[in-house]
Amino acid sequence: MRTIDWEDGAVVLVDQTRLPEELVSLRITDNDDLIAAIRRLSVRGAPAIGAAGALGVALAARRHGDDAAAVRRDAEELRRARPTAVNLAWAVDRVLARLDEGADAVLAEALAILDEDEAANRRIGELGASFLGDLGLDRVAVLTHCNAGALATVGWGTALGVGRQLHAEDRLREAYATETRPLLQGARLTAWELDQLGVPHHVVVDSAAASVLAQGRVDAVVVGADRVAADGHVANKIGTYPIALAAHRAGVPMIVAAPESTLDLDTPTGSDIEIEVRDDEEVVAYRGLRSAPPGTPGLNLAFDVTPPDLVTAIVTERRVIRTSAGGRPDATA
Amino acid sequence: MRTIDWEDGAVVLVDQTRLPEELVSLRITDNDDLIAAIRRLSVRGAPAIGAAGALGVALAARRHGDDAAAVRRDAEELRRARPTAVNLAWAVDRVLARLDEGADAVLAEALAILDEDEAANRRIGELGASFLGDLGLDRVAVLTHCNAGALATVGWGTALGVGRQLHAEDRLREAYATETRPLLQGARLTAWELDQLGVPHHVVVDSAAASVLAQGRVDAVVVGADRVAADGHVANKIGTYPIALAAHRAGVPMIVAAPESTLDLDTPTGSDIEIEVRDDEEVVAYRGLRSAPPGTPGLNLAFDVTPPDLVTAIVTERRVIRTSAGGRPDATA
Repeated sequence: MRTIDWEDGAVVLVDQTRLPEELVSLRITDNDDLIAAIRRLSVRGAPAIGAAGALGVALAARRHGDDAAAVRRDAEELRRARPTAVNLAWAVDRVLARLDEGADAVLAEALAILDEDEAANRRIGELGASFLGDLGLDRVAVLTHCNAGALATVGWGTALGVGRQLHAEDRLREAYATETRPLLQGARLTAWELDQLGVPHHVVVDSAAASVLAQGRVDAVVVGADRVAADGHVANKIGTYPIALAAHRAGVPMIVAAPESTLDLDTPTGSDIEIEVRDDEEVVAYRGLRSAPPGTPGLNLAFDVTPPDLVTAIVTERRVIRTSAGGRPDATA
Repeated sequence: MRTIDWEDGAVVLVDQTRLPEELVSLRITDNDDLIAAIRRLSVRGAPAIGAAGALGVALAARRHGDDAAAVRRDAEELRRARPTAVNLAWAVDRVLARLDEGADAVLAEALAILDEDEAANRRIGELGASFLGDLGLDRVAVLTHCNAGALATVGWGTALGVGRQLHAEDRLREAYATETRPLLQGARLTAWELDQLGVPHHVVVDSAAASVLAQGRVDAVVVGADRVAADGHVANKIGTYPIALAAHRAGVPMIVAAPESTLDLDTPTGSDIEIEVRDDEEVVAYRGLRSAPPGTPGLNLAFDVTPPDLVTAIVTERRVIRTSAGGRPDATA
């Protein structure tokens, strides 16, 4: 089963806000509904929202027929649904470039993106598992943050794709999932995927990741990415940067697993990456339960930026970029 | 009003599990009830549980009369109620040393500990605020973790005592409180104290502290401590260590504010500090709402250990120990 797919003229996607309680899908045929699903994180994860953007353009092309301006308006709204992950804009632009060839060509391009995403993830998993072997890591315990699994992609996963590959090779001893406040994608989604896979795992609060590393409990950190700047700075879920600091201090490899489409050579440096600031209610309340006093505001930075010297390698479907050893995403692109 | 005090033969303490919704006190006359209150964190914070331990021995001395063995049994149970904060054992032992002089002497010693705690906190606040001035920091934004405020002590607070002093000097521009998963002492208690004080503040998820530091939003980090080893390693609420890593990287001073009673010269190094592991339900459920799938276990490390090279200074009521410059708690003790 794919996290997101095209079925009978509709975008069908797993509603990730309902996991782990229930595995249900949404059937979406309207651009506004799709944008709302992206914004409330029913579909989330850079590759998955890229797929959503691609299929959204296909929806628009079918709906508006020859009205190219209307399709482009829908596409532009989709493109802006969330700012940090570059995959969304990348996918929308790529599909939109086929608009002159008609709605069927647009849909074919979108479906190609979905196929390529799954294939890229499998290859990322193989390269990542092989790279850990090159580092002398045979059977490992891995820590991951947020969810960069099958649910964050069309299927298989990026960071958790490396975990799936290790598991397939009987090399994944154990996994630690950070809960990932404020929306608990680690506790809800990564734990659910690990549970389905039968991988022994623990959930820890985000701020315990540093201790898990300092105590020598894990051999590698593997995370995804929402955007990688040309100089190797990695934007990913808030909390990735302190984990990278702790991994560096502990001498544990910090691996970023992401498709080439996440590398944004048009963004020169980390400080050029727009960081989404979300509703502060996500921080000061959870599922309607307020934690802080009524007068207290939250600040909800949704992503952070990890400098390249803290990243052992960025693994894509094509290459292993050793940024802490001076490698840059734009060096061989 | 004190967080914890002796009133008419009973220990009266603010029930911190009920804040910020309501400010209510518990009246405790039984050792088992007091231990339960300490374990479920109705009273928490190293100095406050020290005070609770002292008053608990006074309760036992009154109840058991001349049965010194019974008093010592109660005291030993109290002493073991929580393992990481040294203040609890320190206070129990100090009060118990007066047992031969009778129940009134025991109570007098306990009340002396309470008085000294408030006075020490005031002095820590003055020394801490003055030290920040020495660093060239006049009017500042401060980040703190967990709650080392009036609620964590008999009154005034340690880390937040520095904040109160800065506020009194009109030098506290703004405060950031990390929510402090799993039990949200930052969002619930520190935000409540800051709100009461009228200090502008924001709550952030714990993993956003590193970004708040990297973005230059704060001038200093000030935290409390549960135990400081002789070599300067600091045990404090889980999440302190990654904040120290991020402060170090950002070049922001990392201040530990704690009374001399938190310095444990009998614990030689950080690795000798016992780290409390609490019920994993605190991690995999969020205020009773389960986040992770039913089969997923949590790992609930309640404290972490920050190495001395990451700590700019430990400020006590007597001195400023510059551990990152080679200062050691046992050097002048």
